Amino acid sequence: MTSSQKLQVAVIGASGYGGAELVRLLAGHPQAEVALATASGERAGAKISDLFPSLRGICDVACEEFDLERIASTCDFAFLALPHGKAMEIVPPLLERGIKVCDLGADFRLRDVAVYQEWYKLPHSACSTLQEAVYGLPEWNREPIKKARLVANPGCYPTSAILALAPLVAADIIERDSIIVDSASGTSGAGRSSFGLGMHHPEVSGDYKAYNVGSHRHTPEIEQALNDASGKTAAPLHITFTAHLLPIARGILSTSYATLRQPLDTASVQRVIAERYTAEPFVRVHPAGELPQIKHIVGSNFCDIGVKVDTRTNRVIVISAEDNLVKGAAGQAIQNMNLMCGFEETTSLHGAPVFP
Amino acid sequence: MTSSQKLQVAVIGASGYGGAELVRLLAGHPQAEVALATASGERAGAKISDLFPSLRGICDVACEEFDLERIASTCDFAFLALPHGKAMEIVPPLLERGIKVCDLGADFRLRDVAVYQEWYKLPHSACSTLQEAVYGLPEWNREPIKKARLVANPGCYPTSAILALAPLVAADIIERDSIIVDSASGTSGAGRSSFGLGMHHPEVSGDYKAYNVGSHRHTPEIEQALNDASGKTAAPLHITFTAHLLPIARGILSTSYATLRQPLDTASVQRVIAERYTAEPFVRVHPAGELPQIKHIVGSNFCDIGVKVDTRTNRVIVISAEDNLVKGAAGQAIQNMNLMCGFEETTSLHGAPVFP
Amino acid sequence: MTSSQKLQVAVIGASGYGGAELVRLLAGHPQAEVALATASGERAGAKISDLFPSLRGICDVACEEFDLERIASTCDFAFLALPHGKAMEIVPPLLERGIKVCDLGADFRLRDVAVYQEWYKLPHSACSTLQEAVYGLPEWNREPIKKARLVANPGCYPTSAILALAPLVAADIIERDSIIVDSASGTSGAGRSSFGLGMHHPEVSGDYKAYNVGSHRHTPEIEQALNDASGKTAAPLHITFTAHLLPIARGILSTSYATLRQPLDTASVQRVIAERYTAEPFVRVHPAGELPQIKHIVGSNFCDIGVKVDTRTNRVIVISAEDNLVKGAAGQAIQNMNLMCGFEETTSLHGAPVFP
Amino acid sequence: MTSSQKLQVAVIGASGYGGAELVRLLAGHPQAEVALATASGERAGAKISDLFPSLRGICDVACEEFDLERIASTCDFAFLALPHGKAMEIVPPLLERGIKVCDLGADFRLRDVAVYQEWYKLPHSACSTLQEAVYGLPEWNREPIKKARLVANPGCYPTSAILALAPLVAADIIERDSIIVDSASGTSGAGRSSFGLGMHHPEVSGDYKAYNVGSHRHTPEIEQALNDASGKTAAPLHITFTAHLLPIARGILSTSYATLRQPLDTASVQRVIAERYTAEPFVRVHPAGELPQIKHIVGSNFCDIGVKVDTRTNRVIVISAEDNLVKGAAGQAIQNMNLMCGFEETTSLHGAPVFP
Repeated sequence: MTSSQKLQVAVIGASGYGGAELVRLLAGHPQAEVALATASGERAGAKISDLFPSLRGICDVACEEFDLERIASTCDFAFLALPHGKAMEIVPPLLERGIKVCDLGADFRLRDVAVYQEWYKLPHSACSTLQEAVYGLPEWNREPIKKARLVANPGCYPTSAILALAPLVAADIIERDSIIVDSASGTSGAGRSSFGLGMHHPEVSGDYKAYNVGSHRHTPEIEQALNDASGKTAAPLHITFTAHLLPIARGILSTSYATLRQPLDTASVQRVIAERYTAEPFVRVHPAGELPQIKHIVGSNFCDIGVKVDTRTNRVIVISAEDNLVKGAAGQAIQNMNLMCGFEETTSLHGAPVFP
Repeated sequence: MTSSQKLQVAVIGASGYGGAELVRLLAGHPQAEVALATASGERAGAKISDLFPSLRGICDVACEEFDLERIASTCDFAFLALPHGKAMEIVPPLLERGIKVCDLGADFRLRDVAVYQEWYKLPHSACSTLQEAVYGLPEWNREPIKKARLVANPGCYPTSAILALAPLVAADIIERDSIIVDSASGTSGAGRSSFGLGMHHPEVSGDYKAYNVGSHRHTPEIEQALNDASGKTAAPLHITFTAHLLPIARGILSTSYATLRQPLDTASVQRVIAERYTAEPFVRVHPAGELPQIKHIVGSNFCDIGVKVDTRTNRVIVISAEDNLVKGAAGQAIQNMNLMCGFEETTSLHGAPVFP
Repeated sequence: MTSSQKLQVAVIGASGYGGAELVRLLAGHPQAEVALATASGERAGAKISDLFPSLRGICDVACEEFDLERIASTCDFAFLALPHGKAMEIVPPLLERGIKVCDLGADFRLRDVAVYQEWYKLPHSACSTLQEAVYGLPEWNREPIKKARLVANPGCYPTSAILALAPLVAADIIERDSIIVDSASGTSGAGRSSFGLGMHHPEVSGDYKAYNVGSHRHTPEIEQALNDASGKTAAPLHITFTAHLLPIARGILSTSYATLRQPLDTASVQRVIAERYTAEPFVRVHPAGELPQIKHIVGSNFCDIGVKVDTRTNRVIVISAEDNLVKGAAGQAIQNMNLMCGFEETTSLHGAPVFP
Repeated sequence: MTSSQKLQVAVIGASGYGGAELVRLLAGHPQAEVALATASGERAGAKISDLFPSLRGICDVACEEFDLERIASTCDFAFLALPHGKAMEIVPPLLERGIKVCDLGADFRLRDVAVYQEWYKLPHSACSTLQEAVYGLPEWNREPIKKARLVANPGCYPTSAILALAPLVAADIIERDSIIVDSASGTSGAGRSSFGLGMHHPEVSGDYKAYNVGSHRHTPEIEQALNDASGKTAAPLHITFTAHLLPIARGILSTSYATLRQPLDTASVQRVIAERYTAEPFVRVHPAGELPQIKHIVGSNFCDIGVKVDTRTNRVIVISAEDNLVKGAAGQAIQNMNLMCGFEETTSLHGAPVFP
């Protein structure tokens, strides 16, 4: 396949970590290539490899200001890696011009506009488009993704939490309102332009803290997906979700707690999860007795899951680890692109974790 | 006061991090001094400042093999920083010889011998001595500590969890069996001689993982203290406790969850905790809306506490941060010594956190 | 001594790391206290403990906008922790009003105005005041410091490099133009408000890089002090200095290279350095064969020095470690204050390194 | 090409970081595959993915004890990742059996047996085999590597230092005895079984130190290669080399100093280096004014080089960054395998750096 036969991909918002990770992973894709990249402000005009010297010699595409018609005339597919509120403006015209879209932001993840507006404090200006968006978690939504024009790529925390908990909710073995998700993320999750004390190296190095406690915007996204998995959307469940900031660059580990409806041992619960994911290329369920750790997935598209039952309290503890920029963002987005475009789902996503 | 009038202190087990921290803090104590230190194996004979070059010029006492009579003839007070199972052998004879003891290990923390044996897989050989041991959490046990000959210094995780949750249990505002404690600790908590993959720098750096899930030995210690605080020991509560390993050297942050018996807002719960600790020199309760972080307490004897109510799920989230080697070990031990010996409680513990 | 009898100290520029470290260390000073603190912009009005929650309960002084007359009427002594160019404006009027000053910035370090202007790209507006400024490295300038009204506190890198190399230059055992100083610093050296990619946690974590190569402003400061130590200012030496950024918050390690004029072994060179500092309370010269490391001095006012001769190339390698915020900034400033005010030189600086 | 047509590769010593990295990179190689892996002691029998959970699902080959005949009957090519002294025993019989070898250890790097014995304190038992070994730095030795049966893969530090300095030595623009190499490495360079205080996380985290000063075994290796590049082996040059330990897992940055024979500006020196490497796929020479950093090469086979002339002292400073486990070990080894076996040199080595 020559270059011109490859899927022509636009990376809208290429100056952030999600954009750079898309470029890194697409560099190894035999059927797609970055045809166009956008960045705003002073970053427009710069080559991606100027913004990210790690990519020197790998992608020297120059970033442009966003230009709808130019994208429409050049590209077949667009990834959007933008702050929330931006995607809703440009997705409808992109779709109109026949471009398939995978949006890495939040604008099309929540089906209920009222919920979006409550958590994001923003009116939603593309409600009708929202109706056709497909939530892009392939392990739970593969067929709809294949047919979608617009996929909403899941958030980083939700991916880890949903993959861990949805099998238990689907199997109806946990108390629906007992779920607590306690997550920790590396700092790349905050993005590349969020300068301030909160990301200032001397303050983060050696530190650990919780943030947005009780109000993190990924909460309703996790709830929506678990409610979908449960099949009981009439009586929606609610969860408590706490995010913490780890003094590392990459990776998320979520420790999720739930009360078992009936006593079960670790092996039984492990089996429920393992069987659900037995054919999944990117979910590795650990044998009973082994638990995942961030270091074992960094750089890869894997989500590793392990489980332990605390028989004294009849609670199950599910631990899931993923790279927030890969399975939690760009890797999953490419997995969705592969599905949407009829490519082999795992294409360009085979890279093993970089350990140690 | 001349040197000879100072309290003569033995540090039994001076080659570990707990021992070194005792030495660091005692170096600034005007009424006590390290008269004798012990270490075993090849470390005996070495000066403390050889084992810990950080202490060069600060404490050049040479470590000796443990010798009961020599300690008895030289010292007034002994800190024990030993692996579990060792203290129970030497505490009774030390007490017999009139030496007051603060044990930083686990042997005298659990009043119920059966519980000790279940969790530590070891028979307890000093059951009668155990009866007189006082659990050394000054904020909840100050008067008994003052009169004690033997104080069991709390574990690092328990200190953070109990200080956070005991006010809520005592005020009876949370569902007793709803407590989940999700903690993260720096690696110094594992000690200085625990070599192996689990503490090998390349494996820990950039990593985060849970360990001893559902079986951590600090679980019954937290339960015992919370049951004491509740005053309802007839129907003991049980908790789920999960420990995680942070890729930093020092500090613990515990995120504790509990269901409120009645709806309360953040300010109300904050008030319950703040009022409980209003006179405490080492517990800093944050105003509603602010949460603690590890970096703000490192090197100090403070435990910082913050709280948030998740009104959607009626759960309270209490976050507590402490330095595992100070308030979680050596600092609290010196606080106990000060109480046991009639010194001002805060002596030598004023050092501000080292930030950033 | 009651509070009112204590030296009343102003911290001008209390919102940075240097300012906070002054407050931390002064909190333990029996003869001095923070009477006034300044911060500019939105930080004025905030309590120091709001800016630095680590200092909650330790220093709750509210920051004010800079007001010369108020400082003059309230304080006896002022520490200046300001960006370069600012101190030269306010030092002359402070001195006129009888306030002694220790300036932690660069404005009064270089005696030669032309050199200042060349490296700092700024005209010097206080040339006559500059003449009376004393370079505040007590180990090489103790007596002048005692008599000074104005002390220029050394830079962080220079302190480590000068303490390491000055004894060799003074003893005339190295080739004067052979000196290379290769240093690495933690990120707190960049200050608390230098937001940007260069200090963004995801970019610094796991990284190591050189910066300002061949043009770092600490270069002429090191040269000036070494030329002073050599006593041969007619033929000034020049050095190569390279700074690197470590992915840690605190500490500097300098590896300095020089060619020996005559072959000497490690023990001989070690002796030259050790004898020079034998009476110094804050310089710890390691025995031949042992080398310092950052972790052994963090949080303390020590500078540790070790040496090795590479006999194959006839070069000496001197390694020095210090905490950039203590001996490299606030600790040394207080050491200078102690000397200037007739206090015991080590007062409030006894704190042992916080290890690990 | 079916599996059986692929080059059958043995990884001798698969339980270390070098071995795991070979497996990671070979997993993406279309013309070669891991046919056999060895590990000794209790690790024999374990699957590679048991030893390295990061490789679960990627390589499940079980490790065996070393068995010469089994390797000979199964494999075409062997990588050796063994402690020094071991390879010299097994390389001769492997070669005899027609197996090509790339040795990642030190046994075949130094052509002069006396030098080997002086630095490694070990007699060399395979002197005649040593004569045919080719030093595996493709950028300087490509043609001999293509014809070699035995390639000695360069050390991690030497790769970074030689790539940086050899162009200057070859162009004869620096004083031959003026070279100082000041390097810093992540901790994975120490291997996976080097447990002890030196690699204990609490001691390394937040630290930085020099080690093996004046005696590091990579010194003669750098000297040999630079002497080769200079073409003046009659009067061999000597260097000073200092290694430091960074508190990160991966990456090396070397800051090399040399005195220019004639004054040159940065652009001129940059041109010398850039032109030398213009056709090299894995050496990225930065434009004048830009310098490399570790974070931009982690996970990749790149060595990035930047240069600055310090005109005040007439010294050139060359900075080079590489991943110690990739270009400094396994990546370069596969690059050598590709050359030795007639594959495209860059096969399976295209992976972009994992940033941030």
